[in-house]
Amino acid sequence: MAATLNGRNVAILAADGVERVELERPRQALEDAGARTVVISISSGQIQARDHDLEEAGTFDVDEVVENVSVDDYDALLLPGGTVNPDKLRMVAAAVQFVRSFVESGKPVASICHGPWSFVEADVARGRRLTSWPSVRTDLRNAGAEVVDEEVVTDGNITTSRSPDDLPAFCERIVEEFADASQSAGVTGRS
Amino acid sequence: MAATLNGRNVAILAADGVERVELERPRQALEDAGARTVVISISSGQIQARDHDLEEAGTFDVDEVVENVSVDDYDALLLPGGTVNPDKLRMVAAAVQFVRSFVESGKPVASICHGPWSFVEADVARGRRLTSWPSVRTDLRNAGAEVVDEEVVTDGNITTSRSPDDLPAFCERIVEEFADASQSAGVTGRS
Repeated sequence: MAATLNGRNVAILAADGVERVELERPRQALEDAGARTVVISISSGQIQARDHDLEEAGTFDVDEVVENVSVDDYDALLLPGGTVNPDKLRMVAAAVQFVRSFVESGKPVASICHGPWSFVEADVARGRRLTSWPSVRTDLRNAGAEVVDEEVVTDGNITTSRSPDDLPAFCERIVEEFADASQSAGVTGRS
Repeated sequence: MAATLNGRNVAILAADGVERVELERPRQALEDAGARTVVISISSGQIQARDHDLEEAGTFDVDEVVENVSVDDYDALLLPGGTVNPDKLRMVAAAVQFVRSFVESGKPVASICHGPWSFVEADVARGRRLTSWPSVRTDLRNAGAEVVDEEVVTDGNITTSRSPDDLPAFCERIVEEFADASQSAGVTGRS
């Protein structure tokens, strides 16, 4: 894969309960394309990962706490799934504000599975064409989104997928979308 | 406690990820008041319980599968919380229909913590005064509910509470509400 994301900084926002493969595999695809990735959470230390929501699946180290970071320092945002993960993020004002600011900045944002709940809490789902894990769709629709059942959907700066089965298409698409972003925060400091 | 629920059949609808104390303590309170309780789930066998969503906390035996039961056979419905539990229930049409039919029947229904997500999926939150765990409140509001932050709330036939801390008030209230129901399905067969 061409190193199309050289010099790009990608924020990965996640909390306890994150679905392991939905962080690990997109992160690998982004790093293979040259990006630097940073795991951001609601507190320091480690976050607990899960397989299929219920099975313990190791931990991820937290690089930054969301209260201390700025959208200006990142070129793109990835929101993995896992049921408990976005349920914890949406209760922390700094996490919700980070998601809202990212979407409003126009920089690319991608989410899979249960991750799009954060769009509901940030009230940025309105008028967007989105997909998600089936359980989240009524909440997205009630938040004003146009919900579709497709493996990967890009509407403006938001890309979404439904489940781990969609990871090949999701990873390919986010590398393209994150490369298309007009400026690099790593280079400009602001964008 | 007086045996005010003698002869009453209470349905407890739950799936994997149920918060242990939110099934166990209300069930004990209902049985202490004379009720018979039945654990209903989306498949047979056992369901996995959790403490604080992430810690393994044993299992509960499933008495009935939701596809095989009728609202007519129960006098009241209890929906415990735990993040993953209602997330699984809301994807099963028979579970959503059971909740909707129960609320529309006028029989008492009670839910705590994340349990009220089932009211969103069944589209029976509209116009109701409800409380829940904080993460669920935006989804309830978007589904048309009037959301409040109180330890226990009864609006018509729906009683809700926010978290395990509210269990003493919740358990006391549901015994009262389930006793007030005008007829017993166990006696009449229909109500």
